[in-house]
Amino acid sequence: MADSVLIINAGSSSLKFSLYHEDGNGEFIQYAKGLLEGIGTKPHLIVSDQNNTTLVDKIWTDPKLSQPSARDILFDETLEWIFNHIGDDEIIAVGHRVVHGGAKYSRPVFINEAIYQYLENLTPFVPLHQPGSLSPMRVMMRKKPNIPQIACFDTAFHATMPDKAKRFALPRKYYDEGIRRYGFHGLSYQYIVHYLNQTQSPLAKGKTIVAHLGNGASVAAIKEGQCIDTSMSFTPLDGLVMGTRTGHIDAAIILYMLQEEKLSPEEVESLIWKKSGLLGVSEVSSDMRDILQEVINQGPKAEYAKQAFDLFVYKLIGEIGRLSASLEGLDGLIFTAGIGAHAPNMRNAVCKSLKWLGVEIDENANKAHQEVISTPNSKVLVQIIPTNEESIILKDILDMIKKEKVQA
Amino acid sequence: MADSVLIINAGSSSLKFSLYHEDGNGEFIQYAKGLLEGIGTKPHLIVSDQNNTTLVDKIWTDPKLSQPSARDILFDETLEWIFNHIGDDEIIAVGHRVVHGGAKYSRPVFINEAIYQYLENLTPFVPLHQPGSLSPMRVMMRKKPNIPQIACFDTAFHATMPDKAKRFALPRKYYDEGIRRYGFHGLSYQYIVHYLNQTQSPLAKGKTIVAHLGNGASVAAIKEGQCIDTSMSFTPLDGLVMGTRTGHIDAAIILYMLQEEKLSPEEVESLIWKKSGLLGVSEVSSDMRDILQEVINQGPKAEYAKQAFDLFVYKLIGEIGRLSASLEGLDGLIFTAGIGAHAPNMRNAVCKSLKWLGVEIDENANKAHQEVISTPNSKVLVQIIPTNEESIILKDILDMIKKEKVQA
Repeated sequence: MADSVLIINAGSSSLKFSLYHEDGNGEFIQYAKGLLEGIGTKPHLIVSDQNNTTLVDKIWTDPKLSQPSARDILFDETLEWIFNHIGDDEIIAVGHRVVHGGAKYSRPVFINEAIYQYLENLTPFVPLHQPGSLSPMRVMMRKKPNIPQIACFDTAFHATMPDKAKRFALPRKYYDEGIRRYGFHGLSYQYIVHYLNQTQSPLAKGKTIVAHLGNGASVAAIKEGQCIDTSMSFTPLDGLVMGTRTGHIDAAIILYMLQEEKLSPEEVESLIWKKSGLLGVSEVSSDMRDILQEVINQGPKAEYAKQAFDLFVYKLIGEIGRLSASLEGLDGLIFTAGIGAHAPNMRNAVCKSLKWLGVEIDENANKAHQEVISTPNSKVLVQIIPTNEESIILKDILDMIKKEKVQA
Repeated sequence: MADSVLIINAGSSSLKFSLYHEDGNGEFIQYAKGLLEGIGTKPHLIVSDQNNTTLVDKIWTDPKLSQPSARDILFDETLEWIFNHIGDDEIIAVGHRVVHGGAKYSRPVFINEAIYQYLENLTPFVPLHQPGSLSPMRVMMRKKPNIPQIACFDTAFHATMPDKAKRFALPRKYYDEGIRRYGFHGLSYQYIVHYLNQTQSPLAKGKTIVAHLGNGASVAAIKEGQCIDTSMSFTPLDGLVMGTRTGHIDAAIILYMLQEEKLSPEEVESLIWKKSGLLGVSEVSSDMRDILQEVINQGPKAEYAKQAFDLFVYKLIGEIGRLSASLEGLDGLIFTAGIGAHAPNMRNAVCKSLKWLGVEIDENANKAHQEVISTPNSKVLVQIIPTNEESIILKDILDMIKKEKVQA
């Protein structure tokens, strides 16, 4: 009978989970992972063990379960499977990745009714993201009220930002009501900082920009391990060009679309979150790999794809310039997440354009995806560090459980 | 009987004009200037001559003339005065400062019915600004159809920006429909470039950032005299913190305000254009002078005023960082317009924070508002150059008239 931990990372239409158990030497190792996807359309659960052997492959065909409202039922069934699977093991805690912790939470927190309510009240801030995080919490609270649940927030890492980085130039009451620059991808940034500390990197004490470039993309300016500014702000829409999101646009465009193009707020929402970004500009795909392929193939949309790529790189370079000004200099640049870790052409374009900052890239190291891709002479140390948000959630919840035991 | 030129700079509630005439040696000199303000509330016209002697000081008290719709009538009366005043002189051209020239105009243009219509069709892009520019044009067309009118655009200077600086990451059709990054304050930037050329400044061929900081504020990145990027975009809302405008905010905030705070689009418009910026954060004033005074006096709102000042400086520094990345380095930084030319504390805070870029400020030169305020060792030449948009309009229209004569 081993101690187990369940980690949940739920999005708007999918839910990933991981099961860890104690290996007898105090280490927690993953022994199953699952993906429930197609929530609201074609729900599909796949679970595999640590050897990637498939344990479950289930498609729900009942039309009632293909509705977005079936989310809780699907998750309940998934949990049933999990509890059957673990047998005699005991789940000592469930850790949730939660998009938004509001102005209140700068660290992980044990979930109770009041806190759940607080998080639910944040839904209007990120209506496309927060409901995904809340559903599994709710189901667990009903089903196993005695298992401690812990929320780990993507906003928490940015709590150290100074007022001038948190504030929009709106009347003060809006700041007080929560319309602030929060920042996201915090668990990823936290992992990178943790990694820099573990490896005794000089960047742990330096001025570092981390570029988390996935389907969602952001950059953070980190000084001696603490966040001082980031590109996402009130929501994960702002900042860089993303797969389907605009990134930074003139806010007056929204009014123009409502008043002149006569779009509804819901249509505008769908446009700027789901139909823009790389997809909108390239007309090829929201996926950087497809876009680079279209350029290489000289396909029919190669020109558009090149514009999308150039725009992605240009906005990224601009944010690196802006955040270098926040840091008053730059010692290190770290690429992470899907595009960050796997697109050498993108990294090459970015680094070449940052020569004025003292960035000098080793093209072979870059092509080979080595950890250090700058030359020894480069004034800025450039690294690729694959992120691992799950390991940070695991670490956070084990710390929390340990502390509670000490206090009890 | 001398050749005269009338220059008009009309805003949403005011209209400035200048009369120039030829001095007999081919030079045009100003001999009267006027300000019609309070359009829509308490119309008031003041005209003075070249010695600042008041020629007219008229307040309209008729309630019918205190409506915004009375704009054309008030301007008609102002024109009556002008034509009486010039006597035998002949107005050879009227030059208008026009906020928006759309995607079509990258240089000044003679106004005709079709062009007037094109400019009127741009009104939805900048509903708070364009109508002010159009009214005097319309009145002149009716009143003196034979006098050539020329429109000089605040967007034109930015036409050289590359695709990646002009494009939002929206679906392509929006770009084609005109939802682009245009940039504004172009006549001011054009003047600065003209000045750099005239004075044979090394910056004329270098990488220069010009900060036009007035009640509206923007920065432009200029490489060898050509604009490559700027902070204002689709409208003059975007970018820096301004007197009453937010500058860059997360576009998702607009949807939040509509959907959750239940504001109407008109209320949101008024909020982000007229109640935000320095005014919204400081709760003191939209005027930088009042804000600095509140801090110095340690007045009741000193803390808020300091936050507003810090936010203004921080966003400016960030844009300088971003545009340095666009330029891939920086040779010169130029401050202009009201705040730019008259707020040494602001300039000092900005330059101190840009030490990492090689900026070194001479504090005494800065306090004395000297033209060069960087030290001889500074890697970046920092200058104060008062702008003069009117002289650019005058130059543009005299060039246009001359060319037309040559062609005729």
